[in-house]
Amino acid sequence: MFARVALIGMGLIGSSMALAMRRAGLAGEIVGAARSAATRDTALRLRLADAMFAEAAEAARGADLVVLATPIGAFGAIAAEIGEVLEAGAIVTDVGSVKGMVLRDVAPHLPLNVHLVPGHPVAGTEHSGPEAGFAELFENRWCILTPPDDAEAAAVDKVAELWRRMGAKVEIMPAQHHDLVLAITSHVPHLIAYNIVGTASDLETVTQSEVIKFSAGGFRDFTRIAASDPTMWRDVFLNNKEAVLEMLGRFVEDLTALQRAIRWGEGETLFDLFTHTRAIRRSIVEAGQETAVADFGRRQPAQGE
Amino acid sequence: MFARVALIGMGLIGSSMALAMRRAGLAGEIVGAARSAATRDTALRLRLADAMFAEAAEAARGADLVVLATPIGAFGAIAAEIGEVLEAGAIVTDVGSVKGMVLRDVAPHLPLNVHLVPGHPVAGTEHSGPEAGFAELFENRWCILTPPDDAEAAAVDKVAELWRRMGAKVEIMPAQHHDLVLAITSHVPHLIAYNIVGTASDLETVTQSEVIKFSAGGFRDFTRIAASDPTMWRDVFLNNKEAVLEMLGRFVEDLTALQRAIRWGEGETLFDLFTHTRAIRRSIVEAGQETAVADFGRRQPAQGE
Ligand SMILES: NC(=O)c1ccc[n+]([C@@H]2O[C@H](COP(=O)([O-])OP(=O)(O)OC[C@H]3O[C@@H](n4cnc5c(N)ncnc54)[C@H](OP(=O)(O)O)[C@@H]3O)[C@@H](O)[C@H]2O)c1
Ligand SMILES: NC(=O)c1ccc[n+]([C@@H]2O[C@H](COP(=O)([O-])OP(=O)(O)OC[C@H]3O[C@@H](n4cnc5c(N)ncnc54)[C@H](OP(=O)(O)O)[C@@H]3O)[C@@H](O)[C@H]2O)c1
Repeated sequence: MFARVALIGMGLIGSSMALAMRRAGLAGEIVGAARSAATRDTALRLRLADAMFAEAAEAARGADLVVLATPIGAFGAIAAEIGEVLEAGAIVTDVGSVKGMVLRDVAPHLPLNVHLVPGHPVAGTEHSGPEAGFAELFENRWCILTPPDDAEAAAVDKVAELWRRMGAKVEIMPAQHHDLVLAITSHVPHLIAYNIVGTASDLETVTQSEVIKFSAGGFRDFTRIAASDPTMWRDVFLNNKEAVLEMLGRFVEDLTALQRAIRWGEGETLFDLFTHTRAIRRSIVEAGQETAVADFGRRQPAQGE
Repeated sequence: MFARVALIGMGLIGSSMALAMRRAGLAGEIVGAARSAATRDTALRLRLADAMFAEAAEAARGADLVVLATPIGAFGAIAAEIGEVLEAGAIVTDVGSVKGMVLRDVAPHLPLNVHLVPGHPVAGTEHSGPEAGFAELFENRWCILTPPDDAEAAAVDKVAELWRRMGAKVEIMPAQHHDLVLAITSHVPHLIAYNIVGTASDLETVTQSEVIKFSAGGFRDFTRIAASDPTMWRDVFLNNKEAVLEMLGRFVEDLTALQRAIRWGEGETLFDLFTHTRAIRRSIVEAGQETAVADFGRRQPAQGE
């Protein structure tokens, strides 16, 4: 599909894309850029890329597809750097978890003869770095594209096809709507997971060792989410402020009502909410976005143990 | 260890205990009680019990160990019912997720020649009912016992030994402290999971179908927790009100600070918290209470798919 793909950033998402593109034969050549020599070495050792560069511009030179796959806070500087070397007709896409900011930070640095098609694969794990990737990460997951109004249809189609061939399903929507949807399905969940883990580690009446020992009652599932990369998530909250604050406001409103129901012993209110939420779980399993298997019990010693 | 064990309630926990006791040969005879004929039939079909009764008193008659394994809201009525038939020297224990209320609701109904040793295995899944159980559920998990001050040491030891032989590790603490620890490690996490799922399903700007499609970004992990049994969790919140409200207060305080950090773009505050929470995750994995395997990616098609 592409002669030379440049992956700027070779962490979980960059390395998974490299593996998925290789498996499906989507790129003639894959090159990458990463800040650290360690990441560049690892990427070469794992054969994620044919060549690795310290400078994004070196990787982007001559590429017909450039993928920004660093934390989003770095996008602006990288766009400024590669803007100068991009070939006419090249496509620039990204995998960032916030999309409005791409149009704001990246678009102004790109020449007019280059196509910008922002994207976000809604898939991930709590691990990061070049060794965390795997070719199947995007399978059966959604990738959301948020092309600007004046995007060329052929470029959008090509990026959509790339994701489909990596196993993903593609949805197109405005960047602003993406940021609202992800605020509630990803950003606020991460924020409250980080928050509860922080709260639990700061108590005087319950020791840290008790929190750890008795974490199997639910808490440990939040720690998995709260183990996600700090830089990536700082950047998400700094760059999707309005939508996150709006959804957080709704969350807190609802929590206040729940708090009151507990205080006044309103069992029926609690029961009704707890019943309603089960149905959503069922829909997610039916939509193939989750498995129905019991997971708290951690029955099978999973791979990697 | 016991000649006749009576399991009052044959759901996830009751059936797992039956299987774990059988496997380790801990009971001469296992009998059970459940409200519905369907549960009684299933329990007999799965050979969870040698006999099943509709009335708790029928099961408890002649038992040297009685285990209350229904939602905790039913404990008081069941204790009143079985109090009359219990043999001198019998041990009564339970598996309820709140412990202060057992001394309040159960103890008054028991004759003085019966030993009450309340317990709580910190292990579970989001599934319920007699078919959800498995013998390994308690392996390497903690079981907390909260015997009253005047409990007989021999009875406490016997219940502790029962849990050890079912694979669990045992910790003894005052009921009030248990309720505080579990409020933060289990009850509040469940509450905020229920709450975010409720919030997400009530928005006008984001459709339910979008929430479901794009749930792999973190949200789906909350829906698993929020799929837990409504009756059980209603009873937990109604019976651990003070500790839950206290911990919830702390959670909301911290969330307010985080909200402000986002509003004012304080990246360093966010980064520091997100780094700190990673360490707790690591401790939980090291303590054997969780596996390190990446889970968001749902790599392996798990059993049951
Ligand atoms: N993780 C997820 O679950 C997930 C899901 C969907 C989308 N995303 C998005 O995907 C992007 C990458 O996430 P990831 O999880 O793959 O991250 P990651 O594993 O932490 O990898 C980040 C990569 O970017 C490089 N990098 C970091 N800061 C840089 C900078 N200032 N300039 C140049 N390169 C820099 C890193 O190089 P070094 O290794 O040399 O430091 C590394 O190769 C983020 O924008 C994130 O929002 C993540
Ligand atoms: N699930 C967990 O993760 C977990 C973990 C640790 C402790 N616990 C505690 O363990 C206890 C049982 O939980 P579970 O998950 O095993 O529940 P479950 O799967 O829903 O099973 C509950 C059992 O209790 C019976 N029951 C329900 N209400 C009753 C009533 N009013 N009178 C008599 N019997 C009644 C049910 O009979 P029918 O089937 O006939 O309705 C069923 O056999 C709860 O107190 C809970 O707090 C649960």
